[in-house]
Amino acid sequence: MDVTSRIERALNEAIDQAELPGCPPRLAAAMRYAVFPRGARVRPRLCHSVAAACGEDHPAATDAAGAALELLHCASLVHDDLPCFDAAETRRGRPSVHKAFGEPLAVLTGDALIVLAFQTLARLQCTPERLAALTLTVARSVGVPSGIVAGQAWECEDKIDLAHYHRAKTGALFAAATVAGAASAGADCELWRMVGEKLGEAYQVADDIRDAASEEDEIGKPVGRDLALGRPSAVIELGLDGALYRLHDLVRGAIDAIPPCPNGAELRSLMLSEAKRLVPAKLAQFAA
Amino acid sequence: MDVTSRIERALNEAIDQAELPGCPPRLAAAMRYAVFPRGARVRPRLCHSVAAACGEDHPAATDAAGAALELLHCASLVHDDLPCFDAAETRRGRPSVHKAFGEPLAVLTGDALIVLAFQTLARLQCTPERLAALTLTVARSVGVPSGIVAGQAWECEDKIDLAHYHRAKTGALFAAATVAGAASAGADCELWRMVGEKLGEAYQVADDIRDAASEEDEIGKPVGRDLALGRPSAVIELGLDGALYRLHDLVRGAIDAIPPCPNGAELRSLMLSEAKRLVPAKLAQFAA
Repeated sequence: MDVTSRIERALNEAIDQAELPGCPPRLAAAMRYAVFPRGARVRPRLCHSVAAACGEDHPAATDAAGAALELLHCASLVHDDLPCFDAAETRRGRPSVHKAFGEPLAVLTGDALIVLAFQTLARLQCTPERLAALTLTVARSVGVPSGIVAGQAWECEDKIDLAHYHRAKTGALFAAATVAGAASAGADCELWRMVGEKLGEAYQVADDIRDAASEEDEIGKPVGRDLALGRPSAVIELGLDGALYRLHDLVRGAIDAIPPCPNGAELRSLMLSEAKRLVPAKLAQFAA
Repeated sequence: MDVTSRIERALNEAIDQAELPGCPPRLAAAMRYAVFPRGARVRPRLCHSVAAACGEDHPAATDAAGAALELLHCASLVHDDLPCFDAAETRRGRPSVHKAFGEPLAVLTGDALIVLAFQTLARLQCTPERLAALTLTVARSVGVPSGIVAGQAWECEDKIDLAHYHRAKTGALFAAATVAGAASAGADCELWRMVGEKLGEAYQVADDIRDAASEEDEIGKPVGRDLALGRPSAVIELGLDGALYRLHDLVRGAIDAIPPCPNGAELRSLMLSEAKRLVPAKLAQFAA
């Protein structure tokens, strides 16, 4: 089974929990709507790639870790889109969860997806060491002091710490993807943190570039929002050329940080091709 | 160290994670505000009581389980108070989190507290079997299909399933308190589920009684809200006398469901005295 199918199957099996008897049907529908149809699945794909590079020996652990990361990512999108944050009416080219299901269910959908991520890990049959490493890695990436929730909360501070903001808001889940990928394969996982941190920062820069230089139909959400909302952006800070140079630099840095592992070459070439997909088509030759 | 001190210490140690370098200071402040000063700590006290009844042999596990349950309870209060749900301006006699810190931080505070609950368990040093049992028990109590998030989501359905609603909204966390208390002591924990379910239902009935028959300064939040918001209530359904009879019945049922354990007598007498504290002082003689 290819990686895409494994990722979708694991997410489907997780969301199935919401469709067991006793669950409010609209909550179950909103959870499925928030997770399907698939987005780019960037984080679980990274997790699977690192597990493969480390000589994956327990696919179910990788599947669970990848699903947990994607569920948390989807949860963060649902909450970020709420009227009190971005007030985004669309996401992936269709109504955001709060537009489709109302604000109360959007809050609860995010909550339930966060919990489902940990349920998915807890249901995994694997060695206790791997389970503890995966759970701690995932929790660290989303909670305090510097997970994605903390990253989003920097937007509520009078004085924003930009380095902490970026590292937490995007880097944390990417770092978790590489660390959890290695942990799911039983490898020495902390060595992989820097790879994920650099990729996360690269992804954030690429997101800023897309926000500034894409067409709306290309990314499935409104463009120019960073500028409109006065949010920090690498393009505003460095200019478009400077942001592209920074992206290139970060991807190279991530590749250089890959620790020795059985299948490193495949991972390097995958990371280069992924980097090109992160930016608008017209700029892809500059990405890596 | 007495149980109250242990509960507060465990919660303090959990919230300390939000005060590590790199965490947005207002998020950390809002999380502390949501958890302290202490509420009644009903769920962790129940968890500790059951662990003691089962011959507690690993106090750190009980401490972590109790803290996780209380963090999840506090998270649910923060989100339930949001303008899109109860729009409660006060909680425990002072401004609710969204009134004190704004709506975005209130959403994030709830999210971060949910994650912190799982972090607290994952950081526990104990046997893998206990850790897995505790994590699954806690996740089940808060997620889908029938945890507190699902309970709250029943309020968003056109057709509400009252039995599922009550069991999920209040019963789930009480069931988790008894099951996790037994699990933290290494006992056969599923035998304890019914004790918690009955106590949870009792607590919900007592809450309805307090909502209908208390003075505002006695419970620290506005009274009569169930009626005002058209929410299901045992007092509306059964009348005040009927609700008191039902409460008595549930507490007796919970006591009768206690499985054989080393220190059952203390637990029984504790449950009787707790039941009296659940209802307005003027009605306490009817509670159990």
